[in-house]
Amino acid sequence: MNPYLSRERAAASFNPETITYILDGSPERTHRRREIEGLVLNDPSFQHEDPNFLSRSERYEVAIKKSALMVQKMREHGISDPEEIYWFKSFVHRGRPEPLDIHLGMFLPTLLNQATPEQQERLFMPAWNLEIIGTYAQTEMGHGTHLRGLETTATYDPSTQEFILNSPTVSSIKWWPGGLGKTSNHAVVLAQLYTQGECKGLQAFIVPIRHMGTHEPLPGVVVGDIGPKFGYDETDNGFLKFDKVRIPRENMLMKYAKVEPDGTYVKPLSDKLTYGTMVFIRSMIVGDSARSLSRACTIAIRYSAVRHQSEIRAGEPEPQILDFQTQQYKLFPLLATAYAFQFVGSYMSHTYHRISAEIQAGNLNELPELHALSAGLKAFTSWAANAGIEECRMACGGHGYSRSSGIPDIYVTFTPSCTYEGENTVMMLQTARFLVKSYIAVLAGKQLDGTVSYLNDVSQHRVQPHPVAGRSFLKDINDIQNLVEAYKQRAAWLVVAAAKNVNADVESARKMRKEDAWNKNSVDLVRASEAHCHYVVVRLFAEKLSEVLDVAAHRILSSLCLFYALHGISKNTGDFLQAGLLTALQVDQVQQRVKDLLAVIRPNALALVDAFDYSDTQLGSVLGRYDGNVYENMFEWAKKSPLNKTQVHESFHKYLKPLQSKL
Amino acid sequence: MNPYLSRERAAASFNPETITYILDGSPERTHRRREIEGLVLNDPSFQHEDPNFLSRSERYEVAIKKSALMVQKMREHGISDPEEIYWFKSFVHRGRPEPLDIHLGMFLPTLLNQATPEQQERLFMPAWNLEIIGTYAQTEMGHGTHLRGLETTATYDPSTQEFILNSPTVSSIKWWPGGLGKTSNHAVVLAQLYTQGECKGLQAFIVPIRHMGTHEPLPGVVVGDIGPKFGYDETDNGFLKFDKVRIPRENMLMKYAKVEPDGTYVKPLSDKLTYGTMVFIRSMIVGDSARSLSRACTIAIRYSAVRHQSEIRAGEPEPQILDFQTQQYKLFPLLATAYAFQFVGSYMSHTYHRISAEIQAGNLNELPELHALSAGLKAFTSWAANAGIEECRMACGGHGYSRSSGIPDIYVTFTPSCTYEGENTVMMLQTARFLVKSYIAVLAGKQLDGTVSYLNDVSQHRVQPHPVAGRSFLKDINDIQNLVEAYKQRAAWLVVAAAKNVNADVESARKMRKEDAWNKNSVDLVRASEAHCHYVVVRLFAEKLSEVLDVAAHRILSSLCLFYALHGISKNTGDFLQAGLLTALQVDQVQQRVKDLLAVIRPNALALVDAFDYSDTQLGSVLGRYDGNVYENMFEWAKKSPLNKTQVHESFHKYLKPLQSKL
Repeated sequence: MNPYLSRERAAASFNPETITYILDGSPERTHRRREIEGLVLNDPSFQHEDPNFLSRSERYEVAIKKSALMVQKMREHGISDPEEIYWFKSFVHRGRPEPLDIHLGMFLPTLLNQATPEQQERLFMPAWNLEIIGTYAQTEMGHGTHLRGLETTATYDPSTQEFILNSPTVSSIKWWPGGLGKTSNHAVVLAQLYTQGECKGLQAFIVPIRHMGTHEPLPGVVVGDIGPKFGYDETDNGFLKFDKVRIPRENMLMKYAKVEPDGTYVKPLSDKLTYGTMVFIRSMIVGDSARSLSRACTIAIRYSAVRHQSEIRAGEPEPQILDFQTQQYKLFPLLATAYAFQFVGSYMSHTYHRISAEIQAGNLNELPELHALSAGLKAFTSWAANAGIEECRMACGGHGYSRSSGIPDIYVTFTPSCTYEGENTVMMLQTARFLVKSYIAVLAGKQLDGTVSYLNDVSQHRVQPHPVAGRSFLKDINDIQNLVEAYKQRAAWLVVAAAKNVNADVESARKMRKEDAWNKNSVDLVRASEAHCHYVVVRLFAEKLSEVLDVAAHRILSSLCLFYALHGISKNTGDFLQAGLLTALQVDQVQQRVKDLLAVIRPNALALVDAFDYSDTQLGSVLGRYDGNVYENMFEWAKKSPLNKTQVHESFHKYLKPLQSKL
Repeated sequence: MNPYLSRERAAASFNPETITYILDGSPERTHRRREIEGLVLNDPSFQHEDPNFLSRSERYEVAIKKSALMVQKMREHGISDPEEIYWFKSFVHRGRPEPLDIHLGMFLPTLLNQATPEQQERLFMPAWNLEIIGTYAQTEMGHGTHLRGLETTATYDPSTQEFILNSPTVSSIKWWPGGLGKTSNHAVVLAQLYTQGECKGLQAFIVPIRHMGTHEPLPGVVVGDIGPKFGYDETDNGFLKFDKVRIPRENMLMKYAKVEPDGTYVKPLSDKLTYGTMVFIRSMIVGDSARSLSRACTIAIRYSAVRHQSEIRAGEPEPQILDFQTQQYKLFPLLATAYAFQFVGSYMSHTYHRISAEIQAGNLNELPELHALSAGLKAFTSWAANAGIEECRMACGGHGYSRSSGIPDIYVTFTPSCTYEGENTVMMLQTARFLVKSYIAVLAGKQLDGTVSYLNDVSQHRVQPHPVAGRSFLKDINDIQNLVEAYKQRAAWLVVAAAKNVNADVESARKMRKEDAWNKNSVDLVRASEAHCHYVVVRLFAEKLSEVLDVAAHRILSSLCLFYALHGISKNTGDFLQAGLLTALQVDQVQQRVKDLLAVIRPNALALVDAFDYSDTQLGSVLGRYDGNVYENMFEWAKKSPLNKTQVHESFHKYLKPLQSKL
């Protein structure tokens, strides 16, 4: 054990294990998670080579081999709870996406949710047994977040009772689905349904794309890998082009909408039900943001306690870089953010499950709010985590740039979260739409529930656009409830201002069209959504504290929460000053308090990342090892570089040697 | 040509070629640059395969082959001007670093600058002819920016007149030098000189590391590749460990310091002279920041004019995504930043050359300021460009994540700039040290010149810590000179506040040590440096306008400069409000004006990136093509993916097929 890490651990004011239990939900879940990790780590068939030393084709090969084994082993171990499957998978693949992700995570659930009993009968068991391997083909080369723009057509031919799948343009080629490039033999295809000469909008179809025996592409199907990406090297994201491919009528997923044999289209009862899946996936991304950022923080903070550099006092030994205020100021806000997002993630997951039950019972009341909240928080947390991971990497200096640090991998694996399942800016604007709608409802006399209830007060209290010298809203910068209130007021101020501006443009002399007014104010609408999400995050973090019973854990998490809230204010002082919520003098005090809290967190920083409880194998980082044995391991790792397979690269003799005589 | 791009180009209010000349410095330089690009593009021996389809070992192989050819061709074409060499190299390697970079860019210059005439006689021609291939080995595994911490020793043995090079610890292993892993047979090694029992500090030594005939590592030398990194796949960054390796006394570079045969150490006349090289390299990074960001902007803005998505008005065709205000708000500030940094880059390069001449003449007066300015601007521009490149990538939606977009490559190639040649936070603190020193000099009655001259006024004018309601400093938000003044006042306010706080801590009752007070205030010191750099950038952009004679070019660049300045204020309203430079009402006006200017830039955005004048091959991006032919090219590109070499991957039959029967 690195002596500096031992010293750090001894100095902590709390036992990290108590916080691990809080993060996991209970001690039982912590133990079960570790047990499942043990099943993978102690299984010699899951031996692991660092994929960074392999070519892309080799990485795919290794991954598909592991995935096949993983499915088999999970069944042997009887692992079937979704969360336990998630753990097992992430232990096997060390947090990297893998070729069967979409089959397991979207194809099978789609069958369960959208297939008729007959279709489930016919398709589910073969898919469960990996005879049918499926992907989910929605995005097209020219169309992503805006689903109505999709161009692929499915035209019903009543004479043969078949749908004809077609890709009319290059931009309509399906693009990105994971596992499509090489692995799948079926796809759920989203296409515009045409029947009886009319377009009925998007429907989902089960389309065989490769021969189940030979795995050769079927006639009329052009399918392949879309090529190398920033990351996702293990995954064969693919393209798929149809030249009038016929599938039987029974392959349209007909649990909701239907096409009768004669071509008559039968509408679904409600189209809000598909919202549920989106909410679920977006709330998963909130959790992913927390996990990815907490992994990066673990690496950067451990390394910062091991690394010694420069000098604070001339002539004295080089200090740990964690003792530099600037390093603390980079890393501790990210650490606090990782904790905040962990709690937001579990709140979202609980809320989803609670509301799901109500949806089953036919109560859709809370769905619009949950939908808007999940969209905004998906964007808010993934943006922050995305930038934060790179800050952690750069806080490790040059070594962060080495693949051995593990952070480049975390980044390239995480960063698509800002784009997929709804591009973040579009998500923020969806949240804004809900916020503006809620505000309009309040003006019409409605009483709001939930996270937007602060808008109820808007008609009563002055939303004050400009500061009045000497007065301020904030009474005590150390009172977290007071800070939550300030965040709330800031959100209300920005929501009301944006909504009023949209309205003013519509009602102005120029009579702008509503859509144009919306676009013209969209920068402010995004700003309002961000402030709303920021408020929700601060509030949820503060609320979580009441559940923490261990005194020592409560003390440090309270400091962390206060730090998160104050740091957020200090990074957005313009808003708080402009809204008259703080005076300039208070801004000074907030900035000073943030720096004071760095010193409070400092002795507990290592224990706070230990509490995330990542094993060395999961972290996959030479810099972030629990024992802090960094340099020796880095040297061992480097020696395995493919370029070191031979001492003398033949290219020297091939290209440089002959040149010497020529020059 | 994509019709949307034709339309955009036709709508521009100026001729991009006039701005290209401004960016290049003159029409002649533009033409010469294009001529040199033609030499590479029309040379069939430089055929190019997208390196993203190759393994790392293949990428190294292709690169070293190209580099050897490049050296030969440059001599054939008689290219020897440093800037023309830079162009030729970047055309051959498409902007990627290559294995001979350090040999050409650091090893040869080090010989010229630090070797004695005898050493140059002996070493330069062999190095010029690539018989000696060298690298520059400074950084160690455990030591980077803080040079005094380096551990490698060179101990003089007068009995044999040799130095003994040794790596006493694992952390002392040389780590990172480019071209070290496989390519070089010599290295300039920075080591602590020990002679006559005393450490004389760092000196540079020429050390043979591989046999010049066989290329085998020499006895006592352990050398190899440090393994895969985030990027730099073409470069064999290496490690180097010495086990008491002896080199002749004549291999210490002795132009300045010397060791006599008996071991007597002779000090150099001045140690400030080595500053020159650092200033040069850091000012090069400022230019790199501009170029990397302008490439990313070109790709993102062209693609945003081609891509259609979502709807602004229901039922109407999908608009170009460049018409969304949020997209403009992401990209146009980056476009303006790219222009600002281009001008700062050429200012830095001119200033360096001007002051170099003075240094040769023995006048070192301006060196400290230039040193501080280059450190701060290196950090300021590389941080902004680094974040901006990723914003451009994400503004391209999913396709930005594909390697075909070219932006992942730009990012991973650029991002080390934030770390190498001085870690950015350390750089900002160096600038802060100069700023604080300058302030103290003013208090002592000295009159300052140059970029810090604003501190002269500090004793006269009130540096006002808090806003007075209703009053403000800024008279006209559309007057760029007035905005430059506001940035200057903000810098002065932050520098003075930080300096006073450092001082107060030292003089407080607790009598903090100066170094501890410095560390305790380092977050504020960095903030002050950033504000200083921001002021310099805005000022240089504004000053550049007076050189622009073409009326149409002047008009659009003036708008862009105003936009850059106002956007910077709107992102830092807290500072300006807190310093009393703006009222809350003015902040509203600034934010509104920023949005208005988006509409001014919009019709000229494409022409503004065209003016950067990147050819398709240089840009290396399917999304950023000049003709806007995106989707067809993306499909062609994808088909070349290594995973598509066979239709059916054997792994299906190897891993998945057998599993089906087992499950």
